[in-house]
Formats: sequence, C-alpha cells, structure tokens
Amino acid sequence: MLSVAVAGASGYAGGEILRLLVGHPEVTIGAVTAASSAGDRLAAHQPQLAPLADRVLRPTTAETLTGHDVVFLALPHGASAALAGQLGEDVTVIDCGADFRLADSQPWHQFYGSEHAGTWPYGLPELLTTGGEKQRAHLLGESRIAVPGCYPTACSLALAPAFAAGQVTGDAVIVAASGTSGAGRSLKPHLLGAEVMGSMSPYGVGGGHRHTPEIEQNLGRAAGSDVRVSFTPTLAPMPRGILATCSAAVAPGATAASVRTAYQEAYADEPFVQVLPEGSWPSTGAVLGSNNVQLQMTVDERVGRVIVVAAVDNLTKGTAGGAVQCLNLARGFEETLGLPTTGVSP
Amino acid sequence: MLSVAVAGASGYAGGEILRLLVGHPEVTIGAVTAASSAGDRLAAHQPQLAPLADRVLRPTTAETLTGHDVVFLALPHGASAALAGQLGEDVTVIDCGADFRLADSQPWHQFYGSEHAGTWPYGLPELLTTGGEKQRAHLLGESRIAVPGCYPTACSLALAPAFAAGQVTGDAVIVAASGTSGAGRSLKPHLLGAEVMGSMSPYGVGGGHRHTPEIEQNLGRAAGSDVRVSFTPTLAPMPRGILATCSAAVAPGATAASVRTAYQEAYADEPFVQVLPEGSWPSTGAVLGSNNVQLQMTVDERVGRVIVVAAVDNLTKGTAGGAVQCLNLARGFEETLGLPTTGVSP
Amino acid sequence: MLSVAVAGASGYAGGEILRLLVGHPEVTIGAVTAASSAGDRLAAHQPQLAPLADRVLRPTTAETLTGHDVVFLALPHGASAALAGQLGEDVTVIDCGADFRLADSQPWHQFYGSEHAGTWPYGLPELLTTGGEKQRAHLLGESRIAVPGCYPTACSLALAPAFAAGQVTGDAVIVAASGTSGAGRSLKPHLLGAEVMGSMSPYGVGGGHRHTPEIEQNLGRAAGSDVRVSFTPTLAPMPRGILATCSAAVAPGATAASVRTAYQEAYADEPFVQVLPEGSWPSTGAVLGSNNVQLQMTVDERVGRVIVVAAVDNLTKGTAGGAVQCLNLARGFEETLGLPTTGVSP
Amino acid sequence: MLSVAVAGASGYAGGEILRLLVGHPEVTIGAVTAASSAGDRLAAHQPQLAPLADRVLRPTTAETLTGHDVVFLALPHGASAALAGQLGEDVTVIDCGADFRLADSQPWHQFYGSEHAGTWPYGLPELLTTGGEKQRAHLLGESRIAVPGCYPTACSLALAPAFAAGQVTGDAVIVAASGTSGAGRSLKPHLLGAEVMGSMSPYGVGGGHRHTPEIEQNLGRAAGSDVRVSFTPTLAPMPRGILATCSAAVAPGATAASVRTAYQEAYADEPFVQVLPEGSWPSTGAVLGSNNVQLQMTVDERVGRVIVVAAVDNLTKGTAGGAVQCLNLARGFEETLGLPTTGVSP
Repeated sequence: MLSVAVAGASGYAGGEILRLLVGHPEVTIGAVTAASSAGDRLAAHQPQLAPLADRVLRPTTAETLTGHDVVFLALPHGASAALAGQLGEDVTVIDCGADFRLADSQPWHQFYGSEHAGTWPYGLPELLTTGGEKQRAHLLGESRIAVPGCYPTACSLALAPAFAAGQVTGDAVIVAASGTSGAGRSLKPHLLGAEVMGSMSPYGVGGGHRHTPEIEQNLGRAAGSDVRVSFTPTLAPMPRGILATCSAAVAPGATAASVRTAYQEAYADEPFVQVLPEGSWPSTGAVLGSNNVQLQMTVDERVGRVIVVAAVDNLTKGTAGGAVQCLNLARGFEETLGLPTTGVSP
Repeated sequence: MLSVAVAGASGYAGGEILRLLVGHPEVTIGAVTAASSAGDRLAAHQPQLAPLADRVLRPTTAETLTGHDVVFLALPHGASAALAGQLGEDVTVIDCGADFRLADSQPWHQFYGSEHAGTWPYGLPELLTTGGEKQRAHLLGESRIAVPGCYPTACSLALAPAFAAGQVTGDAVIVAASGTSGAGRSLKPHLLGAEVMGSMSPYGVGGGHRHTPEIEQNLGRAAGSDVRVSFTPTLAPMPRGILATCSAAVAPGATAASVRTAYQEAYADEPFVQVLPEGSWPSTGAVLGSNNVQLQMTVDERVGRVIVVAAVDNLTKGTAGGAVQCLNLARGFEETLGLPTTGVSP
Repeated sequence: MLSVAVAGASGYAGGEILRLLVGHPEVTIGAVTAASSAGDRLAAHQPQLAPLADRVLRPTTAETLTGHDVVFLALPHGASAALAGQLGEDVTVIDCGADFRLADSQPWHQFYGSEHAGTWPYGLPELLTTGGEKQRAHLLGESRIAVPGCYPTACSLALAPAFAAGQVTGDAVIVAASGTSGAGRSLKPHLLGAEVMGSMSPYGVGGGHRHTPEIEQNLGRAAGSDVRVSFTPTLAPMPRGILATCSAAVAPGATAASVRTAYQEAYADEPFVQVLPEGSWPSTGAVLGSNNVQLQMTVDERVGRVIVVAAVDNLTKGTAGGAVQCLNLARGFEETLGLPTTGVSP
Repeated sequence: MLSVAVAGASGYAGGEILRLLVGHPEVTIGAVTAASSAGDRLAAHQPQLAPLADRVLRPTTAETLTGHDVVFLALPHGASAALAGQLGEDVTVIDCGADFRLADSQPWHQFYGSEHAGTWPYGLPELLTTGGEKQRAHLLGESRIAVPGCYPTACSLALAPAFAAGQVTGDAVIVAASGTSGAGRSLKPHLLGAEVMGSMSPYGVGGGHRHTPEIEQNLGRAAGSDVRVSFTPTLAPMPRGILATCSAAVAPGATAASVRTAYQEAYADEPFVQVLPEGSWPSTGAVLGSNNVQLQMTVDERVGRVIVVAAVDNLTKGTAGGAVQCLNLARGFEETLGLPTTGVSP
C-alpha cells in the first residue's frame, strides 16, 4: 500500500481525487492539506466524503506533505514548483495545476505572463504523438507528472486522431461547454447558482483562454507540425461535464468512413475512450463521475469539415481521474485501477 | 383593437405568444385552439397565463380561426399551408412554422423532404440584406409573414453584419446551445428532466439540422453571394435561451475595430439588438423572457477568425416575440409595442 | 410622472425593482445607487436591464436619494433606518429590508439581536387581518411602507384564510423551498452554482430563521390570537421561486369544502392571488417573473390536517413586485399598474 | 461468482442496479431484460454503462430470467408476482417494486386499489423495529426481499429512532423533495426538462401518495403502535436525490440532547447512515450516487417539535443501492460490498 497525500483538499479537484482514492485498493490516504481552511474538518468542505469526514485539514507545506509515497497537488497555478522542489525524487508528484504542462516557454509567457516553471511528462496517456506512439509510454515509472487541463483532455483526444491520420488539414475550431465546477470554488458573482442556472455564457473568447496553447501543443504533437486552434469555452448550467464540439478542414480524399476508421484504430484498446456507434452522440450526463471519454465524429461534406464531439467529466477524467490514471502508470499498477468506467446517470 | 387568434395554444410557442399578447395594448385575444387538447382549460397547459386561465381550447380549424383580424400559427411543420389558404387575404397570418421561410425549393426538398408550400415575407426585421437595406422594409403592411426559426434568428443576426460589410470571407462555423423548450413539448425520453439536467449533448451534427439552409439563405442575402455554414446545435440544461458561438474567416485588412464598427453601424437604431461594450459578453440569462438580442464580437488574430457570440431567448425573440414584432410591422403599430426589453434575471 | 430612486440597485432585489419600474407607466427612474459598486455601469451588475444599461451607479447616500418622489430601499438589514430618517416625510419610502416589519420589539431582539428600528405599515395588501379587513387598508396614501419578506409573503397568504375563518386550530408546520436568489448576491461557497445545482439542503432549521416571527405576526393578526409556526426553509436548485407547503391542525367540523370556501372568499377579488381549481397544484415555474400567488388546499382526514401549498416568485411578488404594489397603493395608482400577471414559462 | 439478471434494465432503477453490479466483485451480469425495448442495445437506454454497452436487451420473461442465481426486478407495480412465482425458491429474487412491501392488505387495497400480492421480508436493514432489533435480522439468507420505496427509505430512517426511543408522541409531518428520476422514465409533459427546470411543485398532496402506508408501517414497527403521517412529496429541479424534512411532536422530557443520543445510538454501527455533527445539515448533493443516508436533527422548543432532515439518493440508497445491500445480506456477503460510500459532488 502506498501512502498518499493530497494538497488542496478543500477544493473541487482535491475532493474528487480523494473520492477516487477512497476506492483505490493500493493506497492509504495520508495528509489532506489546505491553505486558509487548514484546521477545519474535511467534511466542512467535502461533505460527500463520508469515510474521511473526521479528517482534519493540515496546512499545505513541504513538512506536512513529506513522508508520503505519492503527493497530489491540486493548487492554484504557480504554487506547485516551490513545493515539488522540496519533495524527494523518490516521491511521485502528480500536479493538477498548469505549471509544468507546456514544453515551450514562449506560450507560457504569452498566456500566463509569469516565469515558466519547467516541463514534466504530460499526463494524457491516450494522446497520440508523432509516429503513432501514445503518450502513456512517457509516463511509466515517472516521478513527476503534469496532469492536463480539463478542456485539453477533451479537445485533444477529440482531434488528435484526425490530425495524426492526416484526415484534417487544419483550421480547427472548438466550442466547448463546461460545467461550473471547472472554475473551481472561486467566489465570484457570475458563478453564483442564481446567475448560473438557466444561463449560458462564453468567456475567454478570441483565443485568450490559457488552455489554448496546451491544446495546440497536443494537436501539434499528433500532427507532427504546428497546429492553431480557435477555442471558445462557454459556461453551462450544470455542475460537471465538458462537451467539446470540434471541427477542422477535411483533408482531400478523407471521408466519413476513413475518419471513423482513424478513431477506431486510435482508441481500439483504450479502456476509457469510447468511439460510439454511428448515430449515437455523446452527452456529459453519460460520463458523469466516470473516467470515460465518449466520442462521435462525422464529415459535413457541404462545408468540408470533420466534426468531432467529445464528452468528459471535467473533474474525473478531466482532472482527478486523469491524475489517478497517472499514478497507476507511474507506479506500475493496472492503468484502470480504482477508476470508474460507468457514469452516474440520470 | 384587433382581434387575434392563436392556433397551437397548448404548446410552448403558443403559450409565449399569448403571454406577450396579454401585455399588448392593441389586441384582444380571441380563439385559442389546439389539436388533441381541444376542450381542455387553457390553464391545464399554460398555468402561467393566469388572466386566461378559464379559456377553453377550441379545435384548430379554419372555422374557429375565421373572424379574427390576426391569426398566429404555432403548428407542427406542414400544417400551416392548408389552414392559411382558408383565411382571407385581409387576415394577417403570422406563421411560426418553417413552411414558408425558404425562398428556394431545392433546400426545402433536401432538408424537409416534402413539397415546398411556398415563400412568405421573412419576418426578421433587423436582418441586413443586399445593399444594406433591412428586412423590415419587406414586412410593412404584409398579410402573410413567416417567422424565422429560433437558431436562424440568433445566428443570422450574429453573422450578417460581418458578411454584409465584407469583414469575413466565409468558412462560417456555428455551435449553438439551446434550452430544451426549443424542442417543443415532444414526449421523448432524452427531453425528460432527469436526462436533461446536468447534461449537454449535440444533435443534428454534420449539417443535417433543418435550420441550416435558413441560416445560409439569410447570410447569403447579407453577403450578396452564396454562404455555407457548419452548424452544430447542442441541447443545454436550461429551459430557454440560445447561445450561438459563431465564427468565420476574417477578411484581409479587417480588424477588431473595423468589425466592431460594422456591427455598431448595422444595429445602431435597433431597439432589440444590443452590441455590448467591449469586454462584456452575452448570456442567455440576461435576455430571458425579453425580445432582446445581445451580441459581442472580436477577432482572433492568431487563427484569423472573427468570433461573434449572440444570446436570445428562443421562445421570445426566437419565436413569439419575433412574431409579435411582425404583427406590429404588418399592422403599422410601433415596432416595439408589447415587447419586453428587459430580461428576467437572475 | 413620479421620479423614483432605487438604493441597492446592484443586488437582485434592486435589479428586479428596476425591471418592473421600466414597465411602469407613471414613473421615471432617477438615481440608481450602490455601495461598493458605485461608479460602475449598471449593466455590469444587471445585464438584463438593457434600457438602463448605460446608467452609472451612484453611492447610496441621503444626498443621491434626495429629490425623488419615491425611494425604494433594497439594502442589507440595518441600513434603512438612518437613510430613511434623512428623507422628507413627503417622500414615499418603500423598504425591502426587515427593519420595520415587526410590530413588537421582543421578537426583533430575539431573532435579529439588534436595536429595533421601529414599525412601518406592513406592505402585504392581501393579508387578512382581524375582523376580515385586508392589510391594504393600512397602506393607502402612506409614505413609509415595510415590504414583507419573501417567505412571509408566501406562507402568510397560504395560511391566513384558514386561521381567519377558524378552519384550523394551530400546530402550523411549514416547509418551504426557495430558489437561491433568495439568499441575495452573497459570495458564499454553498451558493456557488456547482454546489447548488442538483442539490437540496435545509437551513435555519429548528425555528431560527428570521422570517419566523414575521410569519407568526401575520398569522396572529389573521387568527386574532397568538400563532406559533414550525418553519423550515430549504434551498432548491433553481434561480427563483418559493414553494411553501403549509399545514395546520384542522378545526372540528371543518371540511375540504369549508376550507376551500374560506380561501375562495378571502381571495375572490384579489388580482394577484389565484385559488386554483380542484386538482391543480401550484408550481413555481407558473409564477416566474409575475406578481402572482398560486394556491391550492385540501384536508387530509387521516391525519387531521389542512394542507395548503403556495407558489410565488421570491423576487417579484416576494420582494420587488410587492414593493411596486405598495407604491401603487401609497400613491393612489391602480394597484396592478406595471405588475405582470403572467409567468414566464416554461 | 453469482450470476445475476436484471429485469427492467431500460429504466432508471434498472440502470442504477447495473451500475452498481459492474463494481460488485462477487457477481457476473447475466440477462438484462426489458419490455418494449427488448432487442435494443443496452447503450441506447443506458449510455453511462460503457462496459455493458453492447449487451442486447432481452424480453422480460420467466424464460430469460431463469438460470441465474439472483434476479433483480425493476418493473412497474403489479408485474413482479407472476414472474417471481416462476422462479425457483433457490433463486434470490429482489423486487424493487411495491408489490410485496406491505404486511397488511387493507392499506394495499386503499392505496393501490388492486389485489394484494403478498408480503416479503422488507429490505431496509437499518430500520429499527419493536424491541430495538434492526430489520437486517430478517433479511439474512432470505430468497425473496421487497426493497423499500425511495421516500420510505429516507423518511423511515429519519423518524424511526425518535419513535423507537419515545422521543416523539406522534403528529408526524413530512415534506419531501425528490429529483425527477423518482418518477421514472414516464413520458409525461410535467416531467419534461423545460417544465421541470426552475420549478418546484407538489403532488399526491393530502395523504394520497402510495408511499404513505409504507412509511406508516415502518414507523409503527419502530414505535410499537400505530403511527399516522402527513406526507407531502414535491418534485424538485434536479435529476436525483431526496431531501425529507420530517417533524413530530416532542415527547415530554425529551430534549435536543436526548433526541440526538437516540439517533447516535441507533446508527452508531451503521456503515451507510451518518448522523452529522451538530450544525451540519444534509444535502442531496453530498450523497449523490452513494448508498449513504445523511441525517441531522434538532428540537424546536418554541413549537414543541423534533425536526429531522434526511438526504438520500433516490436511485442509489433509495432503490438500487438498497437492493444490492439486500443481495449482500441474502447471500452472506459483507453488507457494504460493491456499494459506494462517497458521493459524487459537486
């Protein structure tokens, strides 16, 4: 049994990591830590975690995190580097923040406006990379892993096979709807229930969302060349879930059948990615609480576009489930261990 | 005072028409009719219409509709032509169905697969047409008007100014989210509350949605040349509202400023269209229950796209409000009469 | 035309007051004021109020409010007294806060724990009081009116006729569900959309909610003797609306028919209260955005209880609509002026 | 490994049973059956069950169900008896319908209006019965078990300890809010998403709901004498969850402390029932997808009532989780096997 600590345990991502760890047969849950909520019962912030209700949140410091085999970091951007540096190389550190996701400093500076902390192996096992290899090959046995953002998880898995197989030539346009847990537990008026329910709105329009370069990095790896993406996120009146509607210019000669084949081949052996049968389209409800990615695709001949729609749970596969999947790969467990493959629906 | 009948008064569109007519100072509400619900109290289907609660639904026939100055048709597609033919030319007939929206028979056959009933003046007053004229010029004093579909209202007003002003060159991509009232009162499992709440899903993907040729017709008129649109509708967990995220390839030389100017000029005098100040983005909550269209736009230089987002209430501006606006134009009332310009929010 | 100021215009109640005033034919909207948001465009806080979008919020001070015929106060509890004292007696002041609602100091001290500001005429026109007189008689021409709380509006109108007509003997139990706008724009984690959607929870359980003494005061007036109420509010996953499920011990000899008669007589001439036909039950959706109160009642003979269910929109009839209704009474307008009698539904 | 069949696998209860069985280590899933949907892929009705997506629904007949060790029945009321009679006594039959829940024929006739099928051991293991024994004692090794209704699960566990310990004297009043999955997949207009979202409404008011006699039976067993309950269910705008707000007249001498002690003692060793610490109140969000029951209680001295609030997931603990818990008891597995103790939240 590995001992595991979770930093940022009072937030949505931290809570979801703990939910999954409770069901993971190879770990014991050690320190659960927070910043301003240190000293509180965990149940005050995570009432859904009945088996851990009486745990007390400790402060997020190198001291409280030290002594565990595995540390999950679910912290605000910029907070991970300093902490990770104080944890030994034998400790598996899995970071759910953005700090170590980008390989290049330039987009980091452009989109985050701060110093680039560095690059860790990118924790999206199912991602096709140049040459057809999957990203999981780069995660086995690693002690530092950067978990992808929730939108990049959905969008990259949605478009990578089309780019990798040369079925599209570019001009990617993505409009994605996210449940409001994607914004975290931020106390902002537009995230209040009264303003969220019954309303949809866009944000970060025009290429400004920080997940844009991460999506482009992933698709670029799949394509073997630079990819640019028009990415518009929208806030949807639901707690969880991402529905990513993606399209790109169809390549000459590509057809609905050839596109479908590319996806079926790319994901044939993936335990968490379902290429749905023709005529079925994904819904976020169907993946709620699971580590699944549901995909469907077609070609709109009239306009010359491949359309791919992906659904994930932003907190499970999009964050915490992806993180636990990385733990499994890093520590040599079966990749699916402790990860739900059924959604909670309706 | 005009006497007005509403056919299809047990449905969502019919109910919204009646809600607006209750507040319209120049009409009295005559027959309210339905198909299988004829004989029921109106309140059994429209409990929100307290002033009309004791009205009894009559059958939808030429006989019950005859004798009114104005008849609104809120019927399933295909049902309007026969009825309208039995109403005198002096009766103002405003059809909320699709039957008379398309000018050309070819797309009608392709998307509806039935005989084309014909073409009536298209009831989207704010739509720019070739030469910069607005569509309202074609509605004044008309006795037959085809009210636009809800998606075409949002999407056409969102992209027409950019096409009309030559700010975009094509490759339009629209992903729109709609509240579930857009599907009407159809008893289908995927529209049940338990399956809708907390879930988003796409439908009609790949160019198959029937509103596609209507959007293309409208944008083609604005552009003065054929326009093709990649249109993907999605079902959002809210009762009402459409958020249309639209983009198209930016024209050489066009900038965020020049695009904005095109929209400000196009809609400067429009009572129901708000081009929001820079930095503010539309939300469907802000237009709920109103006849407003809120718009914002920008240019994503990295990818060469103009992005425009529009929010409307699918039942108000998208159907019933648009219909009453047509009544006002057809009968020479002030265009805004009886139409709410404030949303019900939060 | 009366000039009207609204203090607290950045909040939910203030926004709803303004929505109604935009449609009120006898007023012009003067100063709109706020505390920390002073200086902002109104649209930054109330994007739904398109006709007032460019108004600028001024600070809430006696100075900015002076010079208007009518002042609506939509402020945190405790803030109204000082301001009202600086406004002339010729100014109609309508307070949506709690400060002046209670006639007795004792419950004020017990439930609010602060000094009792005083008592103004209580702005619930339809409330039966001892002797069968309605409360509206005490509002005509008044220059200071305390608008009821949202729960007391629903609960008092639900139970007062049964108490006034001697159809119940006491032991009132109320469980009410409210949309989250009832909590105002408070930035608290449990009001975030992600935590509200898909979840119901109680609060103020055990008699602690501050609306309890107000309900008891109202029912006591109707009964002509002291009334105690078990009141449990719950937070429901919707933006607006209160559904109050109320019951009390049936009086000897009272029957479903006699109870119904009491309600029909009590509300026969009320423009905003609908006693639904037998078999129809209220829903909050049916009154959304309207000033209506929908009621239904029965007797459960097995347990000896009268059950009454009421639905209101907490922001409209429960706050802002009630306030405008008070304005109409205070200034001698028709009581229904500017007040919607149709809900926005679905 | 036991082979398990699920009849009614296209409905919400059947889907949830399958979700839990996928995670149960001691079963293999055999036949999944349906009525009108027989022949469909399971994924057409249960897209969330990825591991079972390609299963084909077979017809619900004794023939398809025969040959399994365990059969779950998730059928409309009235359909279970005939099927169960054709399954051998060595088959464990767990019925999620109402047919075998009531011990007495009289309330069955009164509330269901049909012939009483009989009585099976009642599958609510945590229920206190006369003498302080728990109901689980009657389930060990049984081959026929009647799973409780969703409301009775929440309401009975909420009030039984107070009755059993003599802390209340009667006059129980329950108002419960349920997510709309509680109504099943019935195609009725008032269950459509557009009508459900943003709206709350009561139903079965006045003692008519069929779960009333079941609650009374359970509380009567706990009290050792007849109990009558005023029960009002309401439909809440959420997919899942029941929040039951329960109260009863406090017994002389009972205090908040003595009441709390009664609950703590009753549920001290229960793995699925959490008596929350003072000051914390249940929410349905916190138990979503779990087999947990969260409870909190207090005494309102002003009105002489004990108030208890319970939250459960109607589909998990309220139906399918309860059913699997019965399977565990019937077959001698650890009672918690395969049952989630963490909620999916936010």
